[in-house]
Amino acid sequence: MSANWAKQFSEYPLVTKSPDSATRVVHVGDIAIGAGAFVVMAGPCSVESERQLLETAEAVAKAGAVILRGGAFKPRSSPYAFQGLGVEGLKILAKARRETGLAIVTEVLSECDVDAVAEYADIMQIGSRNMENVALLESVGRCGRPVLLKRGMVATLEDLLAAAECIAAKGNLDIMLCERGIRTFGTATRNTFDIAAVPVLKEVSKLPVIVDPSHACGVRSLVPVLARAGAVVGADGMIVEVHPDPKKALSDGEQSLLFDQFEAMMRDLAQYVPMALRSESCCASMAGGRD
Amino acid sequence: MSANWAKQFSEYPLVTKSPDSATRVVHVGDIAIGAGAFVVMAGPCSVESERQLLETAEAVAKAGAVILRGGAFKPRSSPYAFQGLGVEGLKILAKARRETGLAIVTEVLSECDVDAVAEYADIMQIGSRNMENVALLESVGRCGRPVLLKRGMVATLEDLLAAAECIAAKGNLDIMLCERGIRTFGTATRNTFDIAAVPVLKEVSKLPVIVDPSHACGVRSLVPVLARAGAVVGADGMIVEVHPDPKKALSDGEQSLLFDQFEAMMRDLAQYVPMALRSESCCASMAGGRD
Amino acid sequence: MSANWAKQFSEYPLVTKSPDSATRVVHVGDIAIGAGAFVVMAGPCSVESERQLLETAEAVAKAGAVILRGGAFKPRSSPYAFQGLGVEGLKILAKARRETGLAIVTEVLSECDVDAVAEYADIMQIGSRNMENVALLESVGRCGRPVLLKRGMVATLEDLLAAAECIAAKGNLDIMLCERGIRTFGTATRNTFDIAAVPVLKEVSKLPVIVDPSHACGVRSLVPVLARAGAVVGADGMIVEVHPDPKKALSDGEQSLLFDQFEAMMRDLAQYVPMALRSESCCASMAGGRD
Amino acid sequence: MSANWAKQFSEYPLVTKSPDSATRVVHVGDIAIGAGAFVVMAGPCSVESERQLLETAEAVAKAGAVILRGGAFKPRSSPYAFQGLGVEGLKILAKARRETGLAIVTEVLSECDVDAVAEYADIMQIGSRNMENVALLESVGRCGRPVLLKRGMVATLEDLLAAAECIAAKGNLDIMLCERGIRTFGTATRNTFDIAAVPVLKEVSKLPVIVDPSHACGVRSLVPVLARAGAVVGADGMIVEVHPDPKKALSDGEQSLLFDQFEAMMRDLAQYVPMALRSESCCASMAGGRD
Repeated sequence: MSANWAKQFSEYPLVTKSPDSATRVVHVGDIAIGAGAFVVMAGPCSVESERQLLETAEAVAKAGAVILRGGAFKPRSSPYAFQGLGVEGLKILAKARRETGLAIVTEVLSECDVDAVAEYADIMQIGSRNMENVALLESVGRCGRPVLLKRGMVATLEDLLAAAECIAAKGNLDIMLCERGIRTFGTATRNTFDIAAVPVLKEVSKLPVIVDPSHACGVRSLVPVLARAGAVVGADGMIVEVHPDPKKALSDGEQSLLFDQFEAMMRDLAQYVPMALRSESCCASMAGGRD
Repeated sequence: MSANWAKQFSEYPLVTKSPDSATRVVHVGDIAIGAGAFVVMAGPCSVESERQLLETAEAVAKAGAVILRGGAFKPRSSPYAFQGLGVEGLKILAKARRETGLAIVTEVLSECDVDAVAEYADIMQIGSRNMENVALLESVGRCGRPVLLKRGMVATLEDLLAAAECIAAKGNLDIMLCERGIRTFGTATRNTFDIAAVPVLKEVSKLPVIVDPSHACGVRSLVPVLARAGAVVGADGMIVEVHPDPKKALSDGEQSLLFDQFEAMMRDLAQYVPMALRSESCCASMAGGRD
Repeated sequence: MSANWAKQFSEYPLVTKSPDSATRVVHVGDIAIGAGAFVVMAGPCSVESERQLLETAEAVAKAGAVILRGGAFKPRSSPYAFQGLGVEGLKILAKARRETGLAIVTEVLSECDVDAVAEYADIMQIGSRNMENVALLESVGRCGRPVLLKRGMVATLEDLLAAAECIAAKGNLDIMLCERGIRTFGTATRNTFDIAAVPVLKEVSKLPVIVDPSHACGVRSLVPVLARAGAVVGADGMIVEVHPDPKKALSDGEQSLLFDQFEAMMRDLAQYVPMALRSESCCASMAGGRD
Repeated sequence: MSANWAKQFSEYPLVTKSPDSATRVVHVGDIAIGAGAFVVMAGPCSVESERQLLETAEAVAKAGAVILRGGAFKPRSSPYAFQGLGVEGLKILAKARRETGLAIVTEVLSECDVDAVAEYADIMQIGSRNMENVALLESVGRCGRPVLLKRGMVATLEDLLAAAECIAAKGNLDIMLCERGIRTFGTATRNTFDIAAVPVLKEVSKLPVIVDPSHACGVRSLVPVLARAGAVVGADGMIVEVHPDPKKALSDGEQSLLFDQFEAMMRDLAQYVPMALRSESCCASMAGGRD
């Protein structure tokens, strides 16, 4: 590690690499994240209906995703935007898990919801807007579930590791760091995808790194090409938005892939990296063991 | 209002100006914020001890501050940094109010603490890191106390008004917007003080606007000069860090003023704007009516 | 000076302060810039016609400006935008000087034009886009005229002093530094006015500091209020755009003041700082001694 | 093309795509840039000596580079930094071309040097600091050589195309756009590599796009991984810094690759994209036809 980086990141001992520390592999059912294969999480921005979610879950599972994303609690900036279906959305996610064997990642917005979300989710997502919400970080640090921690819009990598350390300090080291684009002066894309963050985080931290090409650019046509970039620079996986009918999506329609676009992207990625596979036993055991 | 601004801010009807809307005056005891006089909030970054806080409260009250700031819950990025004294800190703040008549502004970090903080504070502060923590915004929207809402490090003014609208939508319109510097490529100061935000917010929003010159620059010698700038561009007040011995401060020592520096700044500011005064009756009634 | 700043700026010995260095006062005719009074430079973005310039020159001189701005060579980003009148524009500027006694500041875009511009201009302006054009900096370093050096859109203060040092190293220490707003993620104003740059530059550098509130915000209604901020934080002067009919301006109409707005701003500023005055002898001698 | 992009880029007709416009292939000797193969330009930041350059040229040619980079005129921010060997450096570059058959790309800093540089260089480089130096852009627009146009540190993609249009408007359409990292709040890398700029530029512009992973990150260990990202997102080539002994380099040593690192990177890249090859006839003809 460069001296510059060693100095920047030295205050976060639980999440940075030391000479004797192995990389942390995060296990979700029998999916191993950080173990070499590229793990794909896919699904709609928001859970809008049972039909929308189940259809999407089947499509992304068939194309090779192993984890289903979908927001039940939505962190919209305006109080008048769609806020998500709440607990009803969580139940739909659980149903999709039973029917497809996909694991579930979903965002938690409030300390008060941590227990409820942890009851349904396999992975707790902390969104960009909450990366510095220390109370929430500490809550998920005690929740007993792996955490997908998204980088804040203007967080340095040091800020991101500090947030991870807040979770780890409460006893939870099952953390995945997620690069999802930062805010800059640029106007051609929604955010600026900081691709170099991936190899830097892989070098300084022991945690798996996930890329989110959907939020990184905000433009459907760019998602597959940025996914490819994320895969070849060493990310351990990605999270991507897919919707049966993006034009009608209640949120993030412009950056959501159609089913066939997702499938084409998965075939493309398989040329560059080994893809994590969903084992049949996994589906069976998860379907049986939960809910 | 320019057409450009009208378009940017139209989605936040409760907090933006309309042709028939008066400016919102926020009342805290008999202090009126947004009514023409420049209101000064001052005190240490963190409540460190009873002695430190009382000494500071007396000094800032004597020099003309009418509201005392002091953090009991501290949003530090590292889990190993000083986290504040918690409820003990709130009690010390209440004691300072009894002894000096100053109103209290203090930060709330967690939804779970909103009731406890509201019991002691006159003004609830939402810090930069939590400006997009919607669950917390909604909680303070229901807490029955005025709110000091700090702009996020990389929040546009639209983002700031969206956050204010989240509070207002829960029934609380007693909101003060606070410009405290944004994150840019600059390295000479801790943040970049976006001074133009003050007149823009005064034109598009009906809420009072407060400046925080301490966080805006992070350098003691610049605080008085930036305070002056804030005063002449139309801010309704400022919040500033003062400490009896900045070198020993547990947080933000580099940007905290000494007592005599604070007093000199207050004399300087009085040349430029009318300063809000603390009335004796206020002190008496507040001292009698609370705790 | 803080240790942090001393370190950042130590490589530029000609333009930074040393214990024994006095502030540099730049003399333009009998106008002294950096000597305590606030010097106002005003005029249109571009010289469009003799009539437009002379009318503006008279109006700004009457209201208290002592230097006339006006672009003869325009650095437009598109090759199809108005490029300025060139040498014809310089001659119109010279005529305005003869008629009003105002000194002239105008931009030079090309090394090849340095001699021609120096023949007509009292102050050579280096625009933001050319702040790192070292060949041009070196040329104006040898031209024998004072230089107004505008900060680049994303230049740190260190970058700005480095550019000044390039000019100074060629023998020209008559340099004024100009803060004109930086590029950030903000969308409410054209640029972000980095007001703290003024006191920082005044502390670390020996050169006068000028503010440009017109480019800093790009919105007419904000110009006077930002000018006031610049004046109270210690700037030695300002440069501001004024146009007889901004709606018809060939460039920067949205940020140009009308004559009466300029006059009102000058009266307002006089309440805050001592304004530099144009002496009659100055007019006479300049009118006689040039062209 | 998205409606958003079409609107942003519509003012630059010579360099943006139209329904009937083919991609521009830039020919340099018999190297075709923009024709499908990934073109590698490599060499030291600065030409420091004949020995240093020739050694590097041989090493990069052997490993598969087809164009040699090397600065003879250096745009250093401080006037006291190494300024390059000037015309002497150009002569060394020409000698390296004769001995290796590599084409030469080198930066031009001043309008006054355009003819001299064009006499020696096969490709004229416009550096980031000069991307908005319109006088220089127009000069290289008339110089009869292809141009490598580097994106400014804080230039939007629209600004970059505007600069390209300035060159094209003078009759020169042999322009390559170069993404080399932008300035943001990040501190872990020298700049932020805006990888999404590559596919956006490929979609909106007809010009070839080159990536510069060396400047994009400023850290040797990251260069090969970012080069890989650039290759898979559709860049037409890259420019990369290589030095025989980076610790002794007069500039940019921290980001320069050693010979064996460069060779390993080239082997790695060949797994992802077809690499442009240097034909023997090319070497022969160039060696015969110039100097």
